[in-house]
Amino acid sequence: MARASSLSGFPEWLPDGRVVETHVLDSLRRTFELHGFAGIETRAVEPLSQLLRKGETSKEVYLLRRLQDEGEDGAGADPDKQLGLHFDLTVPFARYVLEHAGQLTFPFKRYQIQKVWRGERPQDGRFREFTQADIDVVGADTLPFHYEVELPLVMAEALAALPIPPVRINVNNRKVAQGFYEAIGLDDVEAALRVIDKLDKIGPEGVAVALEEEAGATPQQAVHALELASISATDASVADKVLALGHRSVLLDEGLGELVALLEAAHELRPGTVVADLKIARGLDYYTGSVYETTLVGHDNLGSICSGGRYDSLATDGKRTYPGVGLSIGVSRLLARILGDGLATATRPVPTAVLVAVTDEEHRRASDRVAHALRARGIPTDVAPTAAKFGKQIRYADRRGIPFVWFPGSDGADEVKDIRSGAQVGADAAAWTPPAEDLWPRVGAPGSAPDAQTPGAQAPGAR
Amino acid sequence: MARASSLSGFPEWLPDGRVVETHVLDSLRRTFELHGFAGIETRAVEPLSQLLRKGETSKEVYLLRRLQDEGEDGAGADPDKQLGLHFDLTVPFARYVLEHAGQLTFPFKRYQIQKVWRGERPQDGRFREFTQADIDVVGADTLPFHYEVELPLVMAEALAALPIPPVRINVNNRKVAQGFYEAIGLDDVEAALRVIDKLDKIGPEGVAVALEEEAGATPQQAVHALELASISATDASVADKVLALGHRSVLLDEGLGELVALLEAAHELRPGTVVADLKIARGLDYYTGSVYETTLVGHDNLGSICSGGRYDSLATDGKRTYPGVGLSIGVSRLLARILGDGLATATRPVPTAVLVAVTDEEHRRASDRVAHALRARGIPTDVAPTAAKFGKQIRYADRRGIPFVWFPGSDGADEVKDIRSGAQVGADAAAWTPPAEDLWPRVGAPGSAPDAQTPGAQAPGAR
Repeated sequence: MARASSLSGFPEWLPDGRVVETHVLDSLRRTFELHGFAGIETRAVEPLSQLLRKGETSKEVYLLRRLQDEGEDGAGADPDKQLGLHFDLTVPFARYVLEHAGQLTFPFKRYQIQKVWRGERPQDGRFREFTQADIDVVGADTLPFHYEVELPLVMAEALAALPIPPVRINVNNRKVAQGFYEAIGLDDVEAALRVIDKLDKIGPEGVAVALEEEAGATPQQAVHALELASISATDASVADKVLALGHRSVLLDEGLGELVALLEAAHELRPGTVVADLKIARGLDYYTGSVYETTLVGHDNLGSICSGGRYDSLATDGKRTYPGVGLSIGVSRLLARILGDGLATATRPVPTAVLVAVTDEEHRRASDRVAHALRARGIPTDVAPTAAKFGKQIRYADRRGIPFVWFPGSDGADEVKDIRSGAQVGADAAAWTPPAEDLWPRVGAPGSAPDAQTPGAQAPGAR
Repeated sequence: MARASSLSGFPEWLPDGRVVETHVLDSLRRTFELHGFAGIETRAVEPLSQLLRKGETSKEVYLLRRLQDEGEDGAGADPDKQLGLHFDLTVPFARYVLEHAGQLTFPFKRYQIQKVWRGERPQDGRFREFTQADIDVVGADTLPFHYEVELPLVMAEALAALPIPPVRINVNNRKVAQGFYEAIGLDDVEAALRVIDKLDKIGPEGVAVALEEEAGATPQQAVHALELASISATDASVADKVLALGHRSVLLDEGLGELVALLEAAHELRPGTVVADLKIARGLDYYTGSVYETTLVGHDNLGSICSGGRYDSLATDGKRTYPGVGLSIGVSRLLARILGDGLATATRPVPTAVLVAVTDEEHRRASDRVAHALRARGIPTDVAPTAAKFGKQIRYADRRGIPFVWFPGSDGADEVKDIRSGAQVGADAAAWTPPAEDLWPRVGAPGSAPDAQTPGAQAPGAR
């Protein structure tokens, strides 16, 4: 079992699960860096005043208090001085951009992979501590639309490189919804979006009633809003379907143009991955253009594993405004599914490819020299803990999935045994190399053929 | 400037500093994995009862409190339920070993690189949030001595691979001090060690007085203790020097045997790196065998950057005892020195090797295709944010240190320019590759020649 947790909401993995997690994180990092995103980390804490800027999330914040410093961080303390753990990576990134704007170059493309904390009641799939992997690009005052096309495609590429089923990125655009509501004379856009967001939960009849009661819609407007929400498409036909409803506005046309541009670019690179789904309303109160949600095909109950959108003002210091577009992967939730469902496993829980046996304790130094020579050539190597009988030393390797055991011989007559096949051959520590697929642990679907195309399974550096 | 911090004690790096940090962390990970250490991470929080197990560190703990859940974590709360941020990686590792002993294989070699938090008053070089990199090996009931030789040598190798001056590992052994004190009849070993620990601060005269006053030593015993503390050596002569003092005990002989074994093995692998320094007393109340401290040559004022030792009982569950030996690098303090003194810099603050220029917005898709082709062959590539004049696009690359700008031509007549030399040549996105030293940012001493021998400067995966 890869997962282990004694404290509800705080997941922890056994070494084999951690190999899978490391593979996932390495792979994400590689994709992000190939696309020119610079990695940053921010401190784990922010002043409470920063964390509460958006108001709605206050209940999730963990506040810090020094054990020996009662009073300092008490309930009545200054929220500018009181510190809390960050609950996402967007708030700290906005603060980082404002604070260091003079030393950054814009548009600034950054990725950030860190733990975040939320003091929620831990539930199915909800963690109190979890890892997020974010990419954002932020401009100074302006940010071209084309980034709204590029960023979800970077995430599509990042997710496609992971040992998971295919994903579907559902997209919508605030301008489409708002422009359409304007065209039909539905004024309370925010309220309408809140109601539409419940479509899956309360159904179209419930939504129709709620649109009238909560958003001040006429019965006819409610019908139109539901017609819009029912539209989905993977190509430019989405615009035809919307326009066929017979309502237009400048904003609607702009939004449809953006949506179609995104779908067409996505179709060229990853056909079928990006789907316009006009019932998506979550986040449209916050995002100002494109909005993205991502589901794992066959795992709808997992919810969105990667969400984000365009915000015209990620941050502002009064003089400049910093618009941005970004997406965030909930890595821990994804990893819990990968490990829980056995979608991927590691070939071994240790990095070690070779265990050097020890003939007797007096000759331990000879085994150390073999290990030193192998490591110098980039081969992860361990030395047996004791000079037990060779059978016991082989079992030590076997229990850890270490594929090779090395037997130092006298006068350099060394031999190396593949303990899976039993094949044993003469070998020279200055020259012998294991097969590439055995060099580092690999991660993939259980029982799959060795896959040399999983570079993230390897550790950093020139491997 | 690589460093940026608006909250005292919580360091944060600008992108160029983060490249250096990532290089350091990748390099450490590579060395640890080459030696067969499995990577684990533990949750950031532990129950207060765990954190206070050793008692002495209570003032450093940050407690957590949910903003909307007053009372739950109040001052009088159950310390088994109250949560605090871990202040080191040893306490959580001990808990992890006990909790998952049934699913681990022993001896268990693990590395762990994570942030830790201490609510101390931030001072020169002291952080409230910082990264530690630990290696430990832990056995079930027994753990052979040879690991006390191997682990400091793994750290010596790990530190030698970093862009820092050479290190000196100072070692002592609890058995030597205790065995010697027993031999001269100095009974209060703990008190004597506490006094000896002040040698650098209060000098030999002050120590002599304090040994008599606080450790109950006779004047003669104080002289002998000071004689022992004055001994240092890089080889087996350390035993001769101690024995020349004319006092022996079984424990002393055992300790000297261990010390000499460590020095001899170190001398073979890294001559001059490991030095026996018998005045080291810190940690000897906790460690039971070897103890290690590491200084950066020429940076004595930084204090120890890597410390650790042998503990006969890292953890115990009543039935089994888990002895261990381990060392911990204070990565953030080391990094602050690297960046503050400019010991190493990054060749660029972004991963990007190539910027693809955009001729006009109508042809952005053509530039995207070039970028896609380059990335598919592992070349980190960005596309210009706007179709500005080429001079401006080149400046975009120049400001970020991106060495190459790619100009898509009509009919595939593409060209690529090295903006450092100005050389511009025809190129095919399906075949062109930058020089290996330009592929990823590199980290090294400023102005040093490109050094292809810094594998950790590269990002993970098959690079």
